Amino acid sequence: MSSAFFKNNGPYTILEILNCLNIKIENEVSNRKINDIKDLFSSNENDITFFHSKKYKDIANKTKASFCITTDALRNDLPETCTPLIVDNVLFSTSKLTAKFYPDSINDDFDNSVTDIFKTEFADNVKYGKNVLIGKNISIGSNCLIGHNTIIEKNVSIGDNCSIGSNTIIRNSIIKNNVRILDNCVLGKHGFGFFPLKKGNLRYPHIGIVLIEDNCEIGCGSTIDRGSMSNTVIGKNTYLDNQIHIAHNVKIGDNSIIAGQVGIAGSSVIGNNVKIGGQAGISGHLKIGNNVEIAGGSGVIKDIPDNAKVMGYPAKNIRKFLKDNK
Amino acid sequence: MSSAFFKNNGPYTILEILNCLNIKIENEVSNRKINDIKDLFSSNENDITFFHSKKYKDIANKTKASFCITTDALRNDLPETCTPLIVDNVLFSTSKLTAKFYPDSINDDFDNSVTDIFKTEFADNVKYGKNVLIGKNISIGSNCLIGHNTIIEKNVSIGDNCSIGSNTIIRNSIIKNNVRILDNCVLGKHGFGFFPLKKGNLRYPHIGIVLIEDNCEIGCGSTIDRGSMSNTVIGKNTYLDNQIHIAHNVKIGDNSIIAGQVGIAGSSVIGNNVKIGGQAGISGHLKIGNNVEIAGGSGVIKDIPDNAKVMGYPAKNIRKFLKDNK
Amino acid sequence: MSSAFFKNNGPYTILEILNCLNIKIENEVSNRKINDIKDLFSSNENDITFFHSKKYKDIANKTKASFCITTDALRNDLPETCTPLIVDNVLFSTSKLTAKFYPDSINDDFDNSVTDIFKTEFADNVKYGKNVLIGKNISIGSNCLIGHNTIIEKNVSIGDNCSIGSNTIIRNSIIKNNVRILDNCVLGKHGFGFFPLKKGNLRYPHIGIVLIEDNCEIGCGSTIDRGSMSNTVIGKNTYLDNQIHIAHNVKIGDNSIIAGQVGIAGSSVIGNNVKIGGQAGISGHLKIGNNVEIAGGSGVIKDIPDNAKVMGYPAKNIRKFLKDNK
Repeated sequence: MSSAFFKNNGPYTILEILNCLNIKIENEVSNRKINDIKDLFSSNENDITFFHSKKYKDIANKTKASFCITTDALRNDLPETCTPLIVDNVLFSTSKLTAKFYPDSINDDFDNSVTDIFKTEFADNVKYGKNVLIGKNISIGSNCLIGHNTIIEKNVSIGDNCSIGSNTIIRNSIIKNNVRILDNCVLGKHGFGFFPLKKGNLRYPHIGIVLIEDNCEIGCGSTIDRGSMSNTVIGKNTYLDNQIHIAHNVKIGDNSIIAGQVGIAGSSVIGNNVKIGGQAGISGHLKIGNNVEIAGGSGVIKDIPDNAKVMGYPAKNIRKFLKDNK
Repeated sequence: MSSAFFKNNGPYTILEILNCLNIKIENEVSNRKINDIKDLFSSNENDITFFHSKKYKDIANKTKASFCITTDALRNDLPETCTPLIVDNVLFSTSKLTAKFYPDSINDDFDNSVTDIFKTEFADNVKYGKNVLIGKNISIGSNCLIGHNTIIEKNVSIGDNCSIGSNTIIRNSIIKNNVRILDNCVLGKHGFGFFPLKKGNLRYPHIGIVLIEDNCEIGCGSTIDRGSMSNTVIGKNTYLDNQIHIAHNVKIGDNSIIAGQVGIAGSSVIGNNVKIGGQAGISGHLKIGNNVEIAGGSGVIKDIPDNAKVMGYPAKNIRKFLKDNK
Repeated sequence: MSSAFFKNNGPYTILEILNCLNIKIENEVSNRKINDIKDLFSSNENDITFFHSKKYKDIANKTKASFCITTDALRNDLPETCTPLIVDNVLFSTSKLTAKFYPDSINDDFDNSVTDIFKTEFADNVKYGKNVLIGKNISIGSNCLIGHNTIIEKNVSIGDNCSIGSNTIIRNSIIKNNVRILDNCVLGKHGFGFFPLKKGNLRYPHIGIVLIEDNCEIGCGSTIDRGSMSNTVIGKNTYLDNQIHIAHNVKIGDNSIIAGQVGIAGSSVIGNNVKIGGQAGISGHLKIGNNVEIAGGSGVIKDIPDNAKVMGYPAKNIRKFLKDNK
């Protein structure tokens, strides 16, 4: 992906990139310019990509990128047009290089570019409360409401007929039409992603956004983190209750209903028409099918196929769970 | 119930009501006026009521309402004085009609009627922080404190000797004496109740309130939703820790202690002297007796009798749980 | 401990102390002054201490305190230099007396001593947002950021290079260098500790603080309560995700990683290099060793030794849990 909101400080020359990655290659010192860092599928000729797991070998084999951060064990799965840059830890090096391209995507210090809304172009079009602050690169559609003390930090697009509550903070997010975001939420901050290092953890960049589709509702006190290399997405007409946490890169489908205090860990993908009971938790990197029902309090630690009803920790077929726990 | 705070836009004629419900009755077109929509028990002669489940047949049989939204299968349990209005989905139709009587009870857009407290009648009687906002229809007793950035939206009654923290939002609530509500709470917003529809979910009205009795404490970051057709109640001297979610229509008794991150789903009734450990969850529509102890992390999915001690998910006798899980 | 921040209203005479505790001793009415109330180990000759459990008898035997609140059953474990004051409930009486020494430590009413930051000494040294409030007894190091609507109430020390988010409230806390505290947090309020009494619960004093060591990050919407008779501590380079609740007196070691919605109950001690998955809960008064891994959703109800990996509720060896739950 290219980042919707974060400024790309590139292009960089291959020489600069090799320096960033602490790689010394005798024959490959060049002034060739690289525009961006992207995934294997999205990369073009003037991009650099990364390849860290055998399970992506089919995509790796077709990448158009001219350079790829990878390991010695994986280099042979790349096409001849792609020069491998061999490192010890692909994700760590990718993170370092992404940070070089997108330095603003690492930390979420408060946005000091904000202005009181009554001094902005939105003063006449938006119905707003007291002490509302608006950052740079904001668009707001017609017939929108923004409650008291709410901060729309930089890089936010809000559609028509949206109602934002009070004491809420939004940044780096696209919110479509007829969306209701209630009080005390935080949307669009970076995810909980970093490399643990005893001298001080190294945060990895979050160049993705939060995308909330039409007709959604987000309950009070909820947090939705933006994506790292992809986006965090809430599908059309999906409703979230209070105190829900949606981690980075999670994708939730349409018409889903998620009750209070649910947590969904990073990069999990939830289908359409899914119902999740209160306090249920879903581990990271899982795939939950369409029409799935997850009982309240369940802990889901593996993929769930379409139409399944599950309960328990670890979550299993609801009938089996209830029978086993009579 | 009649609503404590929401404006009744009625009366409506039977003709208007039939139109709202998409019912065509040849013989029953009348200009008779209906004042309110109430439950089977509370209704009077000039009210309309609703009857959706056989388990209420004894109350239905005695209702004083002249009209009742119900199904063909249930109509014969109504008295002769009550004309059945037959619909496919009683709750859906009831919701539509309640919304017609109480249109302000559907959505919780931010309250733009608020004023800075120093401009109100409370400026001299209340000790308040910076940036405190006060809506309409508010009463505040003697010796109260309201922290910084807190918003008392419309329809709130606060007793004597109450301390409200900072960054808290309260609406549609009655708070009795000696109550402490800490920082970052949201009290009195509508509950998570709606009819799922693919074209856009239909919220049902929440004409109830939040009622917090004497001597309670509500911890930081907690959310307590107001009731739909009844109230959400926290009994005397009950203490809630941080990050607790209490859903609509829940009733908690006196002298109960609820630890951090507990969630109680809609319409459950909790007794007196109940202790609930951290992160426990209680499903909706349950009855938890007096003097019950629920261990931290438990998931309660059925009624619990007085004096029981339970643990686990699903919660069961604590001795049995600990023995089974050695 | 002596309290870092709370004002000691002593010294009090023994006579005043006996009155406070409702103790009548014929021979022991004196005007001798007592400076402070401390634990058995920290007390000096002019302090009073308390001793409520046989498991502290070895420390009790060596206490330097001249007076000790205790029971008849425990009095013989005290040295001859220490006069026992016999009560029915040691912790209750200790609480009452601590409240007499430290009356400001009971309740956390909003801090009405705060000033707009632009009127303070920090106006030039700190990069701050709109509507930032600063209480008394505050120090802030170089190169710090404080976001919009954030309230630094009284008794807070912030080191160098710290970034505090927006809508956050901090009091009674020491925050070291390079710490990041994100949006909507509440740090340093009193813990959820009180004696249940039907006439109105009796809060016990919280004279401890929150101490956050170098390089930590605290996620959005998290709450960290200050200690009662000791401190709540987050070790160096430990990262907390969103919506986490850390109760009073908890101590977390260095380099630990705690995912979203975790809750840790009062007085538990967590080691270094510990990883805790999302929504896990840890009961109070437990000891979790170094290098422990606790899977998401687990409920920990007993001590865990170094290097263990646990999962489930109650949490047990992860391999055993997964095998038992196939």
